[in-house]
Amino acid sequence: MIKPPHATVPPGITTLADYEAAAQAHLPPEVWRHIQEGAGEERTLARNRAAFARWGFLPRAMADLRGGTTALSLFGRAHLAPLMLAPIAYQRLAHPDGELAVTRAAAALGAGMIASTLSSVSLEEIAHTARDASRQLGLAPSPLWFQLYLQPDRADSLALVRRAEAAGFEAIVLTVDAAIKPAGLSLPAGIEAANLKGMTRLRQTATAGGRIILGTALADAAPRWEDLEWLRATTRLPVLVKGMLLDEDARRAVEMGADGLILSNHGGRVLDGLPSPLDVLPGLREAIGTSLPVLIDSGIRSGADMAKAIALGTTAVLLGRPQMHALAVAGMAGAAHALHLLRTELEMTMAQLGCPTLADLTPRRLIRIHGEF
Amino acid sequence: MIKPPHATVPPGITTLADYEAAAQAHLPPEVWRHIQEGAGEERTLARNRAAFARWGFLPRAMADLRGGTTALSLFGRAHLAPLMLAPIAYQRLAHPDGELAVTRAAAALGAGMIASTLSSVSLEEIAHTARDASRQLGLAPSPLWFQLYLQPDRADSLALVRRAEAAGFEAIVLTVDAAIKPAGLSLPAGIEAANLKGMTRLRQTATAGGRIILGTALADAAPRWEDLEWLRATTRLPVLVKGMLLDEDARRAVEMGADGLILSNHGGRVLDGLPSPLDVLPGLREAIGTSLPVLIDSGIRSGADMAKAIALGTTAVLLGRPQMHALAVAGMAGAAHALHLLRTELEMTMAQLGCPTLADLTPRRLIRIHGEF
Amino acid sequence: MIKPPHATVPPGITTLADYEAAAQAHLPPEVWRHIQEGAGEERTLARNRAAFARWGFLPRAMADLRGGTTALSLFGRAHLAPLMLAPIAYQRLAHPDGELAVTRAAAALGAGMIASTLSSVSLEEIAHTARDASRQLGLAPSPLWFQLYLQPDRADSLALVRRAEAAGFEAIVLTVDAAIKPAGLSLPAGIEAANLKGMTRLRQTATAGGRIILGTALADAAPRWEDLEWLRATTRLPVLVKGMLLDEDARRAVEMGADGLILSNHGGRVLDGLPSPLDVLPGLREAIGTSLPVLIDSGIRSGADMAKAIALGTTAVLLGRPQMHALAVAGMAGAAHALHLLRTELEMTMAQLGCPTLADLTPRRLIRIHGEF
Amino acid sequence: MIKPPHATVPPGITTLADYEAAAQAHLPPEVWRHIQEGAGEERTLARNRAAFARWGFLPRAMADLRGGTTALSLFGRAHLAPLMLAPIAYQRLAHPDGELAVTRAAAALGAGMIASTLSSVSLEEIAHTARDASRQLGLAPSPLWFQLYLQPDRADSLALVRRAEAAGFEAIVLTVDAAIKPAGLSLPAGIEAANLKGMTRLRQTATAGGRIILGTALADAAPRWEDLEWLRATTRLPVLVKGMLLDEDARRAVEMGADGLILSNHGGRVLDGLPSPLDVLPGLREAIGTSLPVLIDSGIRSGADMAKAIALGTTAVLLGRPQMHALAVAGMAGAAHALHLLRTELEMTMAQLGCPTLADLTPRRLIRIHGEF
Ligand SMILES: Cc1cc2nc3c(=O)[nH]c(=O)nc-3n(C[C@H](O)[C@H](O)[C@H](O)COP(=O)(O)O)c2cc1C
Ligand SMILES: Cc1cc2nc3c(=O)[nH]c(=O)nc-3n(C[C@H](O)[C@H](O)[C@H](O)COP(=O)(O)O)c2cc1C
Ligand SMILES: Cc1cc2nc3c(=O)[nH]c(=O)nc-3n(C[C@H](O)[C@H](O)[C@H](O)COP(=O)(O)O)c2cc1C
Ligand SMILES: Cc1cc2nc3c(=O)[nH]c(=O)nc-3n(C[C@H](O)[C@H](O)[C@H](O)COP(=O)(O)O)c2cc1C
Repeated sequence: MIKPPHATVPPGITTLADYEAAAQAHLPPEVWRHIQEGAGEERTLARNRAAFARWGFLPRAMADLRGGTTALSLFGRAHLAPLMLAPIAYQRLAHPDGELAVTRAAAALGAGMIASTLSSVSLEEIAHTARDASRQLGLAPSPLWFQLYLQPDRADSLALVRRAEAAGFEAIVLTVDAAIKPAGLSLPAGIEAANLKGMTRLRQTATAGGRIILGTALADAAPRWEDLEWLRATTRLPVLVKGMLLDEDARRAVEMGADGLILSNHGGRVLDGLPSPLDVLPGLREAIGTSLPVLIDSGIRSGADMAKAIALGTTAVLLGRPQMHALAVAGMAGAAHALHLLRTELEMTMAQLGCPTLADLTPRRLIRIHGEF
Repeated sequence: MIKPPHATVPPGITTLADYEAAAQAHLPPEVWRHIQEGAGEERTLARNRAAFARWGFLPRAMADLRGGTTALSLFGRAHLAPLMLAPIAYQRLAHPDGELAVTRAAAALGAGMIASTLSSVSLEEIAHTARDASRQLGLAPSPLWFQLYLQPDRADSLALVRRAEAAGFEAIVLTVDAAIKPAGLSLPAGIEAANLKGMTRLRQTATAGGRIILGTALADAAPRWEDLEWLRATTRLPVLVKGMLLDEDARRAVEMGADGLILSNHGGRVLDGLPSPLDVLPGLREAIGTSLPVLIDSGIRSGADMAKAIALGTTAVLLGRPQMHALAVAGMAGAAHALHLLRTELEMTMAQLGCPTLADLTPRRLIRIHGEF
Repeated sequence: MIKPPHATVPPGITTLADYEAAAQAHLPPEVWRHIQEGAGEERTLARNRAAFARWGFLPRAMADLRGGTTALSLFGRAHLAPLMLAPIAYQRLAHPDGELAVTRAAAALGAGMIASTLSSVSLEEIAHTARDASRQLGLAPSPLWFQLYLQPDRADSLALVRRAEAAGFEAIVLTVDAAIKPAGLSLPAGIEAANLKGMTRLRQTATAGGRIILGTALADAAPRWEDLEWLRATTRLPVLVKGMLLDEDARRAVEMGADGLILSNHGGRVLDGLPSPLDVLPGLREAIGTSLPVLIDSGIRSGADMAKAIALGTTAVLLGRPQMHALAVAGMAGAAHALHLLRTELEMTMAQLGCPTLADLTPRRLIRIHGEF
Repeated sequence: MIKPPHATVPPGITTLADYEAAAQAHLPPEVWRHIQEGAGEERTLARNRAAFARWGFLPRAMADLRGGTTALSLFGRAHLAPLMLAPIAYQRLAHPDGELAVTRAAAALGAGMIASTLSSVSLEEIAHTARDASRQLGLAPSPLWFQLYLQPDRADSLALVRRAEAAGFEAIVLTVDAAIKPAGLSLPAGIEAANLKGMTRLRQTATAGGRIILGTALADAAPRWEDLEWLRATTRLPVLVKGMLLDEDARRAVEMGADGLILSNHGGRVLDGLPSPLDVLPGLREAIGTSLPVLIDSGIRSGADMAKAIALGTTAVLLGRPQMHALAVAGMAGAAHALHLLRTELEMTMAQLGCPTLADLTPRRLIRIHGEF
């Protein structure tokens, strides 16, 4: 028996881990597996959490906390906290309201949201709902970005960009790490890629004795550097590249005009064996300097995780799977509550560290933990 | 069914771990959880134990043990052993006799005790009971210190200091690491902060859409360096600062006139991710030299732990949670027995190490254990 | 009840681990144990897997994958992929069709096969079946090598080499790491070393109070360097040495004219405590350079494992126990499917790494993982 | 129900671990615990095994094994293998025949034996039984040493030495690491320290409020360097010191005329936190050179363990607890079988390593294993 979602936050939920524990009962097994699972032996999935555990804190005693805040500015735009909702495909898998519930939660908490190319609600409806919700609550509109998967037909990619611009999205996030991956969940009836109706799509087709992946149309259509060049030339919006880990790739992206990077291993869902973004972050910051916005995701589950990522050089973090957990448990209320929990934890951690602002979160507040666990 | 406490030490208890194992049956679940639990994912809680496991011993063979002793002198005062009872709030949660049972046990064993600001029996009654017990047993009075939590209203803080001085406490311990932490246990009827009647108190109050912690009165009232300056100027008693871990903070405290430090992560109860005091101890000793008394707590559970802490530079250790375990199991008798067990283990360890005095416990008696567990 | 093998691949099998999990039900317990078990405390067996886990991947973003392929050339001969079937004795233990099923699977997938001296079907029949199968499928014949265990009587060793040459085997693999090992499985009726009929064989014979192993005929007959010299002089086929791990031994083998090496610890079946071939591979490549073909086995279970081995310098890998698992579950169909799975995984991994060819798989695509698990 | 011992080796026992697993059923629980348990949290007990696991093997391929042997000479005396039976008190706890069964097994296998001061059969009877057994079997007498615990009254210690000399023991082993330890098993009726009848003995006596260990007669009577000086001057037999771990102590013992050392942590039974003798062995060999015989015990359970210890510089090893396991399972037959298993494993390991003699076992045959388990 699958539990229906609650209308309000159920009692006893005080951490994102509680949402995760509660979510399974609200989801069909194959959807639960789809959300949770990692590629291969799930080593990267485990490492995404372990990477945070290997950093500890070194607080300053008796620091002056007066006037503290988590606010920051990104691409000339105020953010209340260094926290955005990661692009997650097909959110209606978790709750009938899907992306719209998440959109309203983000608006209510003033949190940023990145809508997926593969959203189960059209990007226009997401943008419209966001604006409406902010207006009704009397709040400034919260940041809204669009995540782009390149389509086999470039005209389709272009159409998506133009629609996102028209709908008022404020940045384009080009995801480059998921073009080739094992076949996933077959979507239940009524859930589909709302943005891609009528567009050409590819899938893996190995014929016995023939080519398998290399040398097929699928591999030939994977994103290339020239695609980033094209995108950069195509839109005036800030362009971020999501899903790279190498210093040299980061440098090249910056040279090509990328406005920001999102370090990610796609939540351990694509290639098992990837390091955690947290692990490559300090080196990458050394390689490209501190001026470019660099966000990370994969494994963020608490305000303490956020504080660690920021101390190591990230500009802001993306919240992935926990969106789906909170959504499954309690829809819009759950998603809003999860965002509030994270922010409370971040502020508690900053206060306990003696860090009244994000700028006070530096590597000196961290200590590397070795071989303890 | 919660077991009533025993009147005498029950059979089969030969270590502090035995007290811990036995205690749960004597406590309401929420009190047990309150005593045991750590913040976050309890990594610091685990590390507090692991830190000791990562040091092994290198004994001297055939050393001359004649004339051995564990005695030391602190602030011009004789201590039988390098062991004090840590400040623990509301000890009546564990046993109806609460702080008074612990006080009598300390007096009987000649062990030092640090009374908490949040004791469930007034500081005056604790001091009085201590004196009485020593007199009845025909023993010299055992050391008695007072732990201070700064109050939002400075007049209240001042009143606490003056009362402690008047009651005969011999040192003030200023705890600086626990001003901001998640809401804890709600106290059962009849248990309260006996010292704070009538004083102003603060709690976290997040209003929707408003400030959460940073920028609220709670963060604004957290202890600052100027508070230590004030305390140092206010009393003639030795002042120790409890709850710092950084070399630079230690140096600053010393410069401001602190007479001693208590390295602590508050038993892993406040900010998860903190290192164990044992881990920072050697570096801190290098930073501030060997003359200042530096005590530690967090994870001390045996005489072997004590020997390791002393070999790494601590002057004495504080016993935390095990007080509550022994108290819950067998009240005053349990607390006294726990103190005796610790001392026996410390002497056994020193003898086996070929170290007749505390001064023989040096880093050369230790060996770092890597990657075995 | 032992399940009979399936005639086709059963549903739900998508990895080699699935074959392993399914195989036990299809095998008598003692045969299952014989296939799976390792020497001693099975530390080497565990390490063979752990060695792969300790390498992660660092992909290139947005690489051009067009024209990709896994093909390579070995001893002047085209291979579709860097994958051969390891010599496994007595394959009829796993399935009535034994070596013949494996031979047909290899032919169908164009994969190389190394027939064991201890095959339960004669080497002539294996060679004949391989040729037939390729012809029927209209495919080029797949590579076929012969693995040689030296016999106590050199004339018998010579006879085996001549028969392998005559049957059309293309290379000789001299296994040097398994002359002395604990007594194994007693073969069930009807299964025997088909190639060794009528030849002299030795076994361990400790008499009470007498010599045990050292100083007995068994130790005296173990392969020596002069045996490699003899083999090299005896045949025109490429000679590979299987079962060494030391740089200095590798160099010596090369100086004596070996055409290739197979680094192996015999799947952890002989001496517990050996390192994984993967662990010694990079050092060995430094010692002997990059020109000589160096293959490895022991612990290869996925295409990701293959990619790691190749990035670290191996020319191709050998698939060991999984042959037996797939054979037990579904005979020829299982073996063919297992080979297809591996190749698909390898291509997926290469694509995700941004490596269109084997030459793109370099150490820069790997990252060492420390202490995470 | 406690199983009676078998008269012959029961089926299914092929390793010392099998004896350990089988032994528990043959022993009263408190005896089993007494044999198995370690001090404190049993970290040293665990480390004694882990220390061996952290070394792997690097075999030489195709080495010439002809003429191999495990023989060595010690104090001018031939030993068949580098293996002696450690002193174990009260062997009649494990089997009614106690030390006599072990003595006969040692004689039958030509293995050395070290009789404990605390044997449950008199040293004279042990010596007599050993001679008889060798004579009956037509074998040369096997090596026989006496382990000395210093007695509070020096005249008693002297008497023990003289009796050992008179009975034909060939060396004295002075154990220095177990004078002060927690109270152990209370001996069952009929089992006693056969050698100590009528001698003065001490035990721990803490009076409330009084001295605990330091400053008591127990600590004052612990072995001192002057005791070694005395022993060295007292007997012509070779003197070995058992139970030290420090380089500087080893050097001092050598300077005082010790003829050999036995590195030991007493099987983890005395002070928890000690390193494994294997871990300190290489450094100690560097400190004192290679000429002095240095034996080790604590954790030896297989021929592979022996090979590792020898490669790291030990002259021979002592077998501890497994004696008691084999004795409990099958008396004399069990003990003899255990010795045979160990020697077979050692020879198998040497052959697989390409090492025909003990001198071939060098550090180059080993590889350090990091972080794998
Ligand atoms: C169910 C699911 C669907 C996802 N869909 C997308 C997507 O459409 N586009 C995208 O760029 N990333 C997608 N991601 C990856 C997330 O944006 C993010 O990188 C990842 O969830 C971070 O890992 P974490 O959730 O473990 O923190 C998806 C992740 C999950 C779990
Ligand atoms: C139930 C409980 C109450 C405590 N109350 C106080 C307190 O009132 N003041 C204070 O400075 N520390 C307090 N502490 C912290 C202890 O003084 C000490 O730092 C901590 O218990 C050490 O960790 P351990 O118990 O794991 O060894 C408390 C700890 C516990 C477990
Ligand atoms: C059941 C079995 C039989 C084997 N027989 C042989 C053999 O006859 N000749 C040989 O060189 N290696 C033999 N090997 C070793 C394999 O060739 C290969 O080195 C090993 O299986 C690699 O380890 P893995 O299977 O764990 O990957 C055998 C291995 C197994 C499991
Ligand atoms: C039950 C028992 C009794 C022992 N009695 C003695 C003893 O009388 N004298 C001594 O020097 N060592 C004694 N030992 C220590 C052993 O000689 C040896 O150092 C230890 O058993 C080595 O550890 P292992 O058994 O784990 O390999 C004893 C050990 C055990 C387990």
